[in-house]
Amino acid sequence: MDYTARLHSLQLTVDHLQFDTLLVTHPPNLRYLCGFTGSAGALLVSAGGSVFFTDGRYTQQAHDEVRGAKIAIARKAPQTAAAEWLGRQRPGRRTKRSRSIGIEGEHLTVAAIRRLADLLPGHMRLREAPPLVEQARMVKEAEEIEAIRAAVTTGAGLFDRALEVMRPGISEVEIAAEMEYAARKAGAEGMSFETIIASGVRSALPHGRASAAPIQPGGFVVCDFGVILHGYCSDRTRTVWIGPASAEARRVYDAVLEAQQAAIAAVRSGVKAGQVDRSARKMLQKNGLAKYFTHSTGHGVGLEVHEAPRVAKGQQEVLRPGMVITIEPGVYLQGQWGVRIEDMVVVTEHGCEVLTPTQKEFIVI
Amino acid sequence: MDYTARLHSLQLTVDHLQFDTLLVTHPPNLRYLCGFTGSAGALLVSAGGSVFFTDGRYTQQAHDEVRGAKIAIARKAPQTAAAEWLGRQRPGRRTKRSRSIGIEGEHLTVAAIRRLADLLPGHMRLREAPPLVEQARMVKEAEEIEAIRAAVTTGAGLFDRALEVMRPGISEVEIAAEMEYAARKAGAEGMSFETIIASGVRSALPHGRASAAPIQPGGFVVCDFGVILHGYCSDRTRTVWIGPASAEARRVYDAVLEAQQAAIAAVRSGVKAGQVDRSARKMLQKNGLAKYFTHSTGHGVGLEVHEAPRVAKGQQEVLRPGMVITIEPGVYLQGQWGVRIEDMVVVTEHGCEVLTPTQKEFIVI
Repeated sequence: MDYTARLHSLQLTVDHLQFDTLLVTHPPNLRYLCGFTGSAGALLVSAGGSVFFTDGRYTQQAHDEVRGAKIAIARKAPQTAAAEWLGRQRPGRRTKRSRSIGIEGEHLTVAAIRRLADLLPGHMRLREAPPLVEQARMVKEAEEIEAIRAAVTTGAGLFDRALEVMRPGISEVEIAAEMEYAARKAGAEGMSFETIIASGVRSALPHGRASAAPIQPGGFVVCDFGVILHGYCSDRTRTVWIGPASAEARRVYDAVLEAQQAAIAAVRSGVKAGQVDRSARKMLQKNGLAKYFTHSTGHGVGLEVHEAPRVAKGQQEVLRPGMVITIEPGVYLQGQWGVRIEDMVVVTEHGCEVLTPTQKEFIVI
Repeated sequence: MDYTARLHSLQLTVDHLQFDTLLVTHPPNLRYLCGFTGSAGALLVSAGGSVFFTDGRYTQQAHDEVRGAKIAIARKAPQTAAAEWLGRQRPGRRTKRSRSIGIEGEHLTVAAIRRLADLLPGHMRLREAPPLVEQARMVKEAEEIEAIRAAVTTGAGLFDRALEVMRPGISEVEIAAEMEYAARKAGAEGMSFETIIASGVRSALPHGRASAAPIQPGGFVVCDFGVILHGYCSDRTRTVWIGPASAEARRVYDAVLEAQQAAIAAVRSGVKAGQVDRSARKMLQKNGLAKYFTHSTGHGVGLEVHEAPRVAKGQQEVLRPGMVITIEPGVYLQGQWGVRIEDMVVVTEHGCEVLTPTQKEFIVI
């Protein structure tokens, strides 16, 4: 990854928006900008260059990983060290007016801001910056898409493992264990979120993390899972039926699949994210199921499993080539069961590419 | 867990501190107060009672889990719904002065506060509250200590598995895979943090997550790992040597163990957390190793793997019976290797109980 180019581009934006300096503390943003993969760091980005702060635990790691920024190892918390560093800077070219330090409003807490403000000299003001790094991260570079493709491929293999072990009597958590073991064996750093294996009435919980409940005939099993590979996330959902399936189960499954395919067909450069969401909802409405679709259609995926853009009702963000999003409509009938089908796609000029396209037909076990 | 009693106690404190209402959004705090285990919720706590907000994805789960508070399912984000609910309340008994809404300053972001403020009527003011829930959570109830003990016991078993598979040639990540698989098989919901298996020069990284590096003779392997069981976390570190060990390796290991034992011996009700940290440092100083101990001695553990109190230099928090903390000094020789030994202890009136005491002698593989 070309960290120097990313930092340089951000430096220009920071200057253009009349921030003296941007303080970056959100770990995925740090990783994106300068390569640091640890959990405690702070990066000051200004037109003149960038300085990265971390603490003694990360001395070696910072020198191994960080590119494009000077490295400062502090005895204090990285944010504190960054604020003190700012306080020591001589008034620069903008002395005539107060110096404005941009902060990541979606990540810095009220308490962190209070502590930072106490450390800064009076002529420096903290000001909420737009989510500049998240905006840059939305459109993936070719190297990032390849990293995501590798994560998606590894992630897809876990479902094969789930199908091998899934049978009435095995617990949800045992299925999760087998999938996570397969992920580690395949080299994944970990799971991108807590594995969801939701069976029977629990399949109607859109976020039903694997429990001790045994798989039983006569219901769906929603499997929603993803891995982290070289820092990039995958996210996929497949839903299977256990035992003889009713016509209603097949009808709902097909309706969700149809909605997912309609949403995928709506993805292309220039389309608003909200329009993709509407395509899924319209198709479910046709089947009288729209009111059971209680979440949004998707979200961006990259260094975080949930990142911009949101693919939800009314979202005005315009899709651009290189954006990677999930398409995951679902239908949840409380007290009965639920169905969700999810793939990751990369937006292209005239449509999108489904990453690792695999079969989505109704599976009965 | 007696959620009603916890909420009642917090209601009294909120009233006493002259907050009209406290807005709680931090997921572990929500779980502690009302039992909700999902990721999106907001709880309004006031003298008159509590209302819990979540969104459509969590309808069934909220009704299954939440106790002690009214439940409101919102079409919007829970925080937005909570703010709008506050806006609809008739001016109450404190109409004569502006109504003060307490917020969790360590958890709510600057952007979240800005959005909330926009939704509230002019006579309501957002004001940072002390970390009331974290303070309550520091001292564990008997039922919580049993839950933590169960997590620690399950976690301890993973090291046995690590020892079974550890040999020159196996990769760090394969050892992590075996441990995590054993955790899931034992019923854990997941790991309480990314498993650290740091071998050779990587053992000098205090936070060296398991990598593809193969275990090689002539170095330490630091294994730092924990599970989540019924919501409660465990955290433990053991360090072993591969191949014939040098006298220096044994000397450093013994010094770290001595420091850990000194810190454990310093724990008792009434002692300041900083004093426990000092005990570990003093012992390392005696062996000329204090400057290689680059992090703090420990931290609280419970619903989160890192929570209050901090066991660090100068910390004034006074230990009380029922607090559960880690004791984990380490020595890191950059470019060579590192050693860390960690246990969890529960503070008692006259000392502490080491949860699952097991051998800590120098192990050679």
